[in-house]
Amino acid sequence: MKELGITVKKQENFSEWYTQVVQKAELADIRLGIQGFIVHKPWGFFIIKKIYEYLEEEIEKQGHSAFLFPVAVKEENLKKEKQHAGFTPNVFWITEAGDKKIEEKFALRPTGEAQIYPMYSLWFRSHKDLPFKGYQSRISVFRNEMTTRPFLRGREFLFFETHNVFNSHNEAEEQIKDDLETCRKIIYDKIKIPFLYFKRPQWDKFKGADHTFTPDTLMPDGKRNQLASTHDLGQNFSKAFNIKIRGKDEKEQFVWQTCFGPGIWRIMAALIGIHGDDKGLVIPFEMAPLQIVIIPITFSDKKSESKKIIDSCVKIENSLKKLCYRVKFDNSEETPGFKYHKWELQGVPIRIEIGPKEIKSKKVSVALRTENKKTQITISKIDKEIKKLSLKLDKDIKDKADNYFKNNTRNSNSLDELKELVKKYRGFIKVPFCSVDNDGKSCADILKIETDGADICGTLYPKEEKTNPNQKCIICNKKANHIVYVAKSY
Amino acid sequence: MKELGITVKKQENFSEWYTQVVQKAELADIRLGIQGFIVHKPWGFFIIKKIYEYLEEEIEKQGHSAFLFPVAVKEENLKKEKQHAGFTPNVFWITEAGDKKIEEKFALRPTGEAQIYPMYSLWFRSHKDLPFKGYQSRISVFRNEMTTRPFLRGREFLFFETHNVFNSHNEAEEQIKDDLETCRKIIYDKIKIPFLYFKRPQWDKFKGADHTFTPDTLMPDGKRNQLASTHDLGQNFSKAFNIKIRGKDEKEQFVWQTCFGPGIWRIMAALIGIHGDDKGLVIPFEMAPLQIVIIPITFSDKKSESKKIIDSCVKIENSLKKLCYRVKFDNSEETPGFKYHKWELQGVPIRIEIGPKEIKSKKVSVALRTENKKTQITISKIDKEIKKLSLKLDKDIKDKADNYFKNNTRNSNSLDELKELVKKYRGFIKVPFCSVDNDGKSCADILKIETDGADICGTLYPKEEKTNPNQKCIICNKKANHIVYVAKSY
Repeated sequence: MKELGITVKKQENFSEWYTQVVQKAELADIRLGIQGFIVHKPWGFFIIKKIYEYLEEEIEKQGHSAFLFPVAVKEENLKKEKQHAGFTPNVFWITEAGDKKIEEKFALRPTGEAQIYPMYSLWFRSHKDLPFKGYQSRISVFRNEMTTRPFLRGREFLFFETHNVFNSHNEAEEQIKDDLETCRKIIYDKIKIPFLYFKRPQWDKFKGADHTFTPDTLMPDGKRNQLASTHDLGQNFSKAFNIKIRGKDEKEQFVWQTCFGPGIWRIMAALIGIHGDDKGLVIPFEMAPLQIVIIPITFSDKKSESKKIIDSCVKIENSLKKLCYRVKFDNSEETPGFKYHKWELQGVPIRIEIGPKEIKSKKVSVALRTENKKTQITISKIDKEIKKLSLKLDKDIKDKADNYFKNNTRNSNSLDELKELVKKYRGFIKVPFCSVDNDGKSCADILKIETDGADICGTLYPKEEKTNPNQKCIICNKKANHIVYVAKSY
Repeated sequence: MKELGITVKKQENFSEWYTQVVQKAELADIRLGIQGFIVHKPWGFFIIKKIYEYLEEEIEKQGHSAFLFPVAVKEENLKKEKQHAGFTPNVFWITEAGDKKIEEKFALRPTGEAQIYPMYSLWFRSHKDLPFKGYQSRISVFRNEMTTRPFLRGREFLFFETHNVFNSHNEAEEQIKDDLETCRKIIYDKIKIPFLYFKRPQWDKFKGADHTFTPDTLMPDGKRNQLASTHDLGQNFSKAFNIKIRGKDEKEQFVWQTCFGPGIWRIMAALIGIHGDDKGLVIPFEMAPLQIVIIPITFSDKKSESKKIIDSCVKIENSLKKLCYRVKFDNSEETPGFKYHKWELQGVPIRIEIGPKEIKSKKVSVALRTENKKTQITISKIDKEIKKLSLKLDKDIKDKADNYFKNNTRNSNSLDELKELVKKYRGFIKVPFCSVDNDGKSCADILKIETDGADICGTLYPKEEKTNPNQKCIICNKKANHIVYVAKSY
C-alpha cells in the first residue's frame, strides 16, 4: 500500500510530490531512455485529449480551420526565421537515413512559423482571401532543452497553434481579445485553473512579435507557469516571408498576423499541481477518464449476500453507463482499502461503495474525491445525486484553486519588501515600475539579481492597472508608469 | 476557368488526374521543398480527421485506450526489432542539435513496435493485467521512401495503430476478426470503399507476424491499394522484447499480440481515386467539409430583385445551419459558372441555386454532385429534400464503387489468360495456386515475372474459397490447394 500511494506531502516537497503523481497516477512513463521524450499513458492522455478537444471546439467556433504541416523544416526557412524566433540553437537535425547521409539535412519543427509562413506567401493573393484563420492540433514540437520534466519541459512536447492572417491591424487586435476569451473559457471555466493575462514587457516578448500576451498561473511552489502565448506579429513575419496581398485599393501590402499557442503540457502540469492533493490527482468531473468507480464490500464467507452485492453493483454500473457516465465496477481481487487508495490516487471523482449495509438500506455510500467523508444516497435518486456531486466536485476544485491564487498575489512598494516576499512566499507580487519598454530592461535586470531570479511578468491585459502620480519605480525611483507583476518562473 | 478545373479525364490519365485533384481540390500542398513531406490543407485535412474520428470511435467501443508514444526511437530498440520489422534501412536519424552532434543519435519512428513493446515489457506483470488494448491516433511515421506521392507514399505519412496484448492466441484471433469488422464498418459502410480482406501469403507477410491480413481495394488504374493491415504477432515480439506475465497457473509466460494499422493516407487516396470523377473530388455526405453551397443568380442591373435573392439565400443558409448542415452562402464576386466549377471540383455534395425564377416559384434549384441535372424543390420542404439528396448521393457513390470493384474482379485458369487479363484490365484475378506457405514462393516469383509485376495478394479471409479437386496451380501444374487473388500493386 505504501508503495502505491504518494509518500510525500504536496506542501512539504512539491517537486517530489509532482514526480510521484506523474508516475503513480499513470500519467506518463519516462523509462524509454531518451531524455525529454516521454510516453503519454492512457490515463494522462485522456485528460490531455480533453484539453485538445476543448480548444479545437472553441477555436473552430471562431472560424479557424485545421491543417497539418509536416514535422520537417527546411534549413533555409529556419534561417529566415532565426532573427525573429531564435530557436535555431536548440533545433534537432535529421542528417542520416539508413546508413547514409541525406543530401540536405532538415530540422524537426521547434514551432510552426518557419514552416507555415512560406506557404502563406503562396496561398494568399487578394484581400478577399482574408481573414484566414488556421490551426494545427495534436502535434509535437522539438527543442533540445537541457533540463526536462514531464508536462513542464520536454525535448518533444505537445503543441497547439493558430496562425491568423488579416488585412488590418485592427482585426489582429480583435483576434488577440478572442484568444484571451478562449483562455478564459477553457483554462479557467472548464479546467478551473485561474490565471492573470499579461502583456509582456518589450524585452521579454517573442522576438518576432510586436507584443506578446500570456495567461500565467501559479504552481503550488509559488512559481509562475505560463499557460499560453498570443503574439501580435504585426508585419514582421509577412515582411520576412513575403506574405503580400492586393488590397481593396489595388495596392500590394503586407498582411497582419497573430498566432496563439496554448501550452497543452503547461495546462496539464497546472491541473496536476494546482488541483492535486496529498492523496494524488484531482480532476474536474468532465475531464476524468473514469468518473465513477463502484466498489463492492463482500465477505468470502457470505456467498449469497455477496451475490446480492455484486448484482447490485452491476445494476448500478449499467444504469450509470446508460446515463453516459464513465463508470467502472472494480470487481478485482484487491481489498476495498487498496481500491480506495488506487482510485483516489488516480483522481476518480466519485466512489460508490456497496456492502451488506447498503443492500439492507437500499442506499449506497458515496465518497467525493474532494471531501473526506461518505454520504448515503438512495438508489432510486442516484441520477440526481450524481449530478449534484459532480457540480460539488467542480466547485470544490475551483474554490480551492481560486483561493490559492488570490492568497498568493501580493503588493509591494519597495525592493526590500519585494525581496522578502519573493523569498518567503514566491507567488505574484505587484510593484510600481518605471517602464515596460526596452528602457525598463536595466531595472528588470537589477530586480532579477536582487530577488535571486524573479522576473517582471508584465502588465495586466486588456485593462492595465493605473499607478498614482506619487508612485516610484522600486528600482530606479523614477516615476512609476506601470504596475507590473513579479514572479519566479519555471 | 480552364486552369481551375481538371484538364484530363480520369479514365485516360489517372495519374495526372490524381495529381491535379490533390492540388486543385486543395487537399495537399507539396511546395514545402522537402521531398515526401506534404502540407495537409484544411479541405483535405477535414476529410482525414473524419477518417480518424470514425476509427477512434469504433476502436474505443472495443475497449482500446489511447496513448501517445514519442517520435523518437532508441537505436538499440530498433535493432531488436530489426529482424522482425526490417525498417532500419529506411529510418531517419537525428544526429545533431543546434550546431553540435548529440551524444546518442535516435531515429524517427518508422512504426510503433520498437517504441511500444519495450514499455509493454514494463507495464504487464500478471494475467490479470490483460487483455490490454492500446492505440495511438493522429501521429506521423517516417520512412525514407525513394518515390513519393501525396496520400500514397510519403517520407512522413499519417498513421493510426492499435497494439494489443492477450493471455491466449484465441483472444488474439478474436481481435483480428474485430479488426476486419472495423474495416467493414468504417472503410466500406462509412467511406464507401469496397475491399477484399486477404490473408497474405507467408512470403509476403509482415516479417514479425505469424500471419498478416489486409483489406485491399482497387484504384481506377486497376492497381491494388492496401488499405490497412492486421498482424497476428503470435509470441514473436513478446519473446524479442521480453513481454512476460504470470499466468493463472502462476507460471511465467510470453503474451500473445496483435496489431492493426489502417492506412489513413491509403484510405484517403482510395476516396479520391475511386469516388472522384472528371469534374474533381466526390465525398460521402457526412465527410464533406462543406455539405451544401448556396449560389445566388443575380443581375447587376436589377437591384431590388437581387436584394430579394440575397435575402432568400441568407435565410436558407441560416435554416440549414440550424439543421446542423455545413453550409456556405457563396456571395463572392465570381460568376455563378465559376462557382459551380469550383465547388464541384472540391466535391461539395449539394448545390442550391437561387435566382429570379426561384424567387417567383418559391422553389430552389438543386444539383447533386453525383448527378448531371438540376431539380426544383419547395423551400418549405427543404429539410426533408436535403436529407433525401444526401442519401441519394451516398448511394450513388457506393453503387459506382461497388460496380467498379465487382467488374474488375475476374477469374482465370491458365497463366496465358492471366497474363492477358493483367495486361488488358489489371484488377483482381482469381487463380488456382499450389501453396500460400513458403513453398509457394517460387511459383509466385515466376508469376510475377510472367505477368510483368503482378503479385499474389493472398486468400480470402475469414472464409477462404474452396478449390475443386481437379484444379491445378497455374504455374507448376501441381494440385491447387488455394484460390488466390493476383493484382498489380502500388
